[in-house]
Amino acid sequence: MATAISTTYSNVESERANVIRFGVVGYGYWGPNIVRNLSALPGASVASLCDKSLHALRRASQAYPGLKLSSNPSDLIASPLVDAVAIVTPVWTHYELAKDALEHGKHVFVEKPFTSTVKQAEELIELADKYNLKIMVDHTFVFTGAVRKIRELVDEGMLGSLYYYDSTRVNLGLFQHDINVIWDLAPHDLSIMDFVIKARPEAISATGQRHLNGHEDVAFITVYFPERLIAHLNVNWLSPVKVRTTLIGAEKKMLVWNDLDTEQKLKVYDKGVEIRTKEDMYGLMVTYRSGDIWAPRVEEVEALTIELQSFLECITHNKPIINDGVAGLQIVRMLEAASASLAKKGEIVYL
Amino acid sequence: MATAISTTYSNVESERANVIRFGVVGYGYWGPNIVRNLSALPGASVASLCDKSLHALRRASQAYPGLKLSSNPSDLIASPLVDAVAIVTPVWTHYELAKDALEHGKHVFVEKPFTSTVKQAEELIELADKYNLKIMVDHTFVFTGAVRKIRELVDEGMLGSLYYYDSTRVNLGLFQHDINVIWDLAPHDLSIMDFVIKARPEAISATGQRHLNGHEDVAFITVYFPERLIAHLNVNWLSPVKVRTTLIGAEKKMLVWNDLDTEQKLKVYDKGVEIRTKEDMYGLMVTYRSGDIWAPRVEEVEALTIELQSFLECITHNKPIINDGVAGLQIVRMLEAASASLAKKGEIVYL
Amino acid sequence: MATAISTTYSNVESERANVIRFGVVGYGYWGPNIVRNLSALPGASVASLCDKSLHALRRASQAYPGLKLSSNPSDLIASPLVDAVAIVTPVWTHYELAKDALEHGKHVFVEKPFTSTVKQAEELIELADKYNLKIMVDHTFVFTGAVRKIRELVDEGMLGSLYYYDSTRVNLGLFQHDINVIWDLAPHDLSIMDFVIKARPEAISATGQRHLNGHEDVAFITVYFPERLIAHLNVNWLSPVKVRTTLIGAEKKMLVWNDLDTEQKLKVYDKGVEIRTKEDMYGLMVTYRSGDIWAPRVEEVEALTIELQSFLECITHNKPIINDGVAGLQIVRMLEAASASLAKKGEIVYL
Amino acid sequence: MATAISTTYSNVESERANVIRFGVVGYGYWGPNIVRNLSALPGASVASLCDKSLHALRRASQAYPGLKLSSNPSDLIASPLVDAVAIVTPVWTHYELAKDALEHGKHVFVEKPFTSTVKQAEELIELADKYNLKIMVDHTFVFTGAVRKIRELVDEGMLGSLYYYDSTRVNLGLFQHDINVIWDLAPHDLSIMDFVIKARPEAISATGQRHLNGHEDVAFITVYFPERLIAHLNVNWLSPVKVRTTLIGAEKKMLVWNDLDTEQKLKVYDKGVEIRTKEDMYGLMVTYRSGDIWAPRVEEVEALTIELQSFLECITHNKPIINDGVAGLQIVRMLEAASASLAKKGEIVYL
Repeated sequence: MATAISTTYSNVESERANVIRFGVVGYGYWGPNIVRNLSALPGASVASLCDKSLHALRRASQAYPGLKLSSNPSDLIASPLVDAVAIVTPVWTHYELAKDALEHGKHVFVEKPFTSTVKQAEELIELADKYNLKIMVDHTFVFTGAVRKIRELVDEGMLGSLYYYDSTRVNLGLFQHDINVIWDLAPHDLSIMDFVIKARPEAISATGQRHLNGHEDVAFITVYFPERLIAHLNVNWLSPVKVRTTLIGAEKKMLVWNDLDTEQKLKVYDKGVEIRTKEDMYGLMVTYRSGDIWAPRVEEVEALTIELQSFLECITHNKPIINDGVAGLQIVRMLEAASASLAKKGEIVYL
Repeated sequence: MATAISTTYSNVESERANVIRFGVVGYGYWGPNIVRNLSALPGASVASLCDKSLHALRRASQAYPGLKLSSNPSDLIASPLVDAVAIVTPVWTHYELAKDALEHGKHVFVEKPFTSTVKQAEELIELADKYNLKIMVDHTFVFTGAVRKIRELVDEGMLGSLYYYDSTRVNLGLFQHDINVIWDLAPHDLSIMDFVIKARPEAISATGQRHLNGHEDVAFITVYFPERLIAHLNVNWLSPVKVRTTLIGAEKKMLVWNDLDTEQKLKVYDKGVEIRTKEDMYGLMVTYRSGDIWAPRVEEVEALTIELQSFLECITHNKPIINDGVAGLQIVRMLEAASASLAKKGEIVYL
Repeated sequence: MATAISTTYSNVESERANVIRFGVVGYGYWGPNIVRNLSALPGASVASLCDKSLHALRRASQAYPGLKLSSNPSDLIASPLVDAVAIVTPVWTHYELAKDALEHGKHVFVEKPFTSTVKQAEELIELADKYNLKIMVDHTFVFTGAVRKIRELVDEGMLGSLYYYDSTRVNLGLFQHDINVIWDLAPHDLSIMDFVIKARPEAISATGQRHLNGHEDVAFITVYFPERLIAHLNVNWLSPVKVRTTLIGAEKKMLVWNDLDTEQKLKVYDKGVEIRTKEDMYGLMVTYRSGDIWAPRVEEVEALTIELQSFLECITHNKPIINDGVAGLQIVRMLEAASASLAKKGEIVYL
Repeated sequence: MATAISTTYSNVESERANVIRFGVVGYGYWGPNIVRNLSALPGASVASLCDKSLHALRRASQAYPGLKLSSNPSDLIASPLVDAVAIVTPVWTHYELAKDALEHGKHVFVEKPFTSTVKQAEELIELADKYNLKIMVDHTFVFTGAVRKIRELVDEGMLGSLYYYDSTRVNLGLFQHDINVIWDLAPHDLSIMDFVIKARPEAISATGQRHLNGHEDVAFITVYFPERLIAHLNVNWLSPVKVRTTLIGAEKKMLVWNDLDTEQKLKVYDKGVEIRTKEDMYGLMVTYRSGDIWAPRVEEVEALTIELQSFLECITHNKPIINDGVAGLQIVRMLEAASASLAKKGEIVYL
């Protein structure tokens, strides 16, 4: 019995000959998910974990007894036993850590939002290009079954041209100390929109209010696209209910994505409105169409697993990354514009 | 048998000695509800109904065989058999009809929104004052059990100070031909807010887009109040799903009003966030409270009935009207500001 | 103006040359719906209405000022101005009233359940045959869009062979004074099953309990069909929530009908289980299939209108009636069996 | 850094001086949860794990690298390093394994249902008494926040006397190969009822049908209690939807427990029916009361953790166990009765 299992183990080891060895910086809310996934993925290993908090390191050590721990990211980043650095820390630290990692020749997996400024993002992209390294920004949702399916339906033309994208992402907490609710929650929606919508956003208007800790905890963002497509995001840390719902209005079919619905995450409505010119007093006649509803089955694999697998594959085979630095930059550009508009109480900011 | 019933009827007649006799202008979508209620209310009668459409008059005549019909509102308004005029027509006709009615000494019940411009509203208020007549603007929701209950909870201080008011009012159609979705749907929310929130709005930002008939069919409105209270309205004629949900975030308790939930229209959440100053690296500590949910029973009487009863009573006893011309003007002022902001893609407009 | 309308009216009159004139007995909870529909249907008219309660007659007279009223059903039934009698009274009165009507040469539309006993039902069927008159038992649900659609899906073979039919019909009240919850609520489900399922039931087991007024207010019925099809009904007057849900388990697809869901009354699940013989320790292997969900659009016309139209047409063109006396008898037979089983605390009763 | 962590570890070790060392038999569907909890609980450790399946052992070894594994339960049970045995295997193996464990002086934690027969259960209880050992039957639900709260509300008298307990526990799969759906799913409801309801059940009627693998996959159980309290369980492996809902009808308040509702697991309805004697034609008058709904907050700690903690504490301090062998026997007795009734198609079986 014991022999059989040992054998299996040594096989596994030999398969791991060309694994990517990760140094993980940050073991707070999201870090444990990164470590858990990297530990389980065949082509990856966690070589080292770093966090400033003793408490965090202790939690990690209980869950992964053999794991090498440190409280100094520089050592980890400089270590020759590390091929790639996963940065799972607050956004204001991303730029320094990622720069350091790239300059030490490490690939970078970094939490969203990519950086605090457009300038930082551009610099990191340049660095990665220079050293021929990969950057992946953790836009996890882009790897969910639901978002993949939406993209597929849009690409196939099933929905026809898009009219609007209207997302609500509200719940109670978690209040961030260093960023407002836009920088915390909107990157999810902006990266999903960036993935699903082909057209490039043209301008942004944002409004909001701060109530408790000096950062906006309630905010509303309008994004203007070409051809009358409009997007709207409602993000809120102060909601008594958790809502994760996106409506996509379109010409041929309409779609509702409720990420909290375990049975029907996506619903495609055979509903629509048509306007015909008519010789009557109004000149226009509106007709409504209301047909079946279809809830396509959505893959339920953990998105982060797929995402990290994709990162490994893109490194190993030098493939382009969907959610690369450029995608990350695009989101930071929109966040910067939203901040600028927010400061002027909704005045439009062109991208 | 028949005798008994006739007797009852003559009793009813004598009770109706001092009824308010209404002329109703407009028998489209909402008019039938006005006529049905006025016909059934003890202190009211429908003396005459007017509509331009033969088809509408035919429908009315089938439902109310004895009803006096006409296609000319002037006759109805001028008639000595009419004490009050109910104006249930498109908004661009309100001013002329209401002015005519007031100048003929009739009280006015008028559909929301009150008028097309602030100037018109001010003029009508002045006229009513001059002739000592009543104006009621049909802000029906103010008379629903749910809105009454919300007002009560706010007034009692159960919620504590308000943080935000966030309403979503979306569905497929009915497209209006003469106004956009803001003028069509937002008056509901604006009048509810006006009733529930004591503070006066200071500024408005609105964004939106038109897709089909030249009027905005999707729009988002932010309303700024003093003391960091913020309101947001999401109105949409192009949604595959019908949503009628309002979140009220507040200091002590939070509230969700889902007008489509037959069982729990209102839910009061014993949830909240507290920020305390703390001697740690962040300086602030956030704590969350999450307790019971309470769904108070809400009166289910038809709001329009209560509203029209109130109109009768205010006329008969010369009492002030909650939803009078001044309340109507307040809504029109906000609609005008929203239109101005919309034209400038979200630029703030001060009230 | 007035002329145009009068013309229309006389046209309508002439069209009504061969209307079926109804005498309606009973104006309690359901009667008003019958009168409203018969008044509006082109091929029908309400010649006379009878109720023992003065209060009921007064309500009728307010809603239909010209309607002929009486408190004696015999006069109505005997009247030469009446072609068909609609019996909307408690079940214990059905037999006498229907018999009287048939013997006076009138067609009969009668509330569910048809009669109190199998014997009564058989006698009425015989009488109708003898005089060549029609009986329709008001199994309204058979005319709803949802039930029609279910029947269609079953007939097309989309679901494959049926495994079970599991219905829950519970709410608070309305307590009946003369019958228990099985006789009150189960006729709905039994008549739907009778319409949807081709196989004939073989046996019944029923359990339940009485808590308040001496009649069972909570009951559970199992119906055995051939080929392992089983049905179960949960009926309850004492539930704090209203539930109207039916699950249909089947070989190829499964179906959920939630009659209270305004958006997705029917959901068809591409779900299933397959058992394969396998050479392992268990001998059998179970595999699960889980695919898309499809919510077909369901007609939303009032079922009672369609049902009464069908009655008129079957009378006029001497066509067979779906929900005729024989269908009514089938339900009464099952109710009798359920009562017998209930009395023996669940002992099986063969049909 | 490393030093600090090591220190903590040695502290933890010393605290574990008097831990209960578990041998766990079975690492299939539920076993991993037992191992995870026992590994994390301060007063417990997993000394050894046994499973017949190599694949299962491999999974365990990946998750718990240092864990001692075996494929022979006898060794584990006989080991002097084991204080208590957790039996997480199919029900037909429980008796032999538990007997063996008790005879080796080990405490027993055993999956529900306790045993396959009443006789076996009685024998094990006797053995445990004889050797002064503890048996806990894994009625996990009894340790959930929801069930605890229901028990509290019933005990406090808030609901008044109970009328009925109506549970639906249906979903697709997991088909069991050795037992039918009653033995698989009903133990949950029966153990919850046993905990919540003070009265002792008197008789059982059960119906059902087998469609696929020779075991009933759909079944309905009625349980009669004294004083007109009735319970009903709907258990089904073939449902396209997952339902976990229990209605409790009672005199003063009514309760709905929806275990899948993340926001409002419990709802208490201020609803009721009163019957008064009245001098009218019916003799009885029914009045309905419909008030607020209250959703008490429910503890969300993992029930299995609490349950195992309780097991440790009862062993250490020799306290009585709620879900002991006698509680397990009570459930087996009801399952036996249900099987007997099922075989006779619903005939009542007295307990």
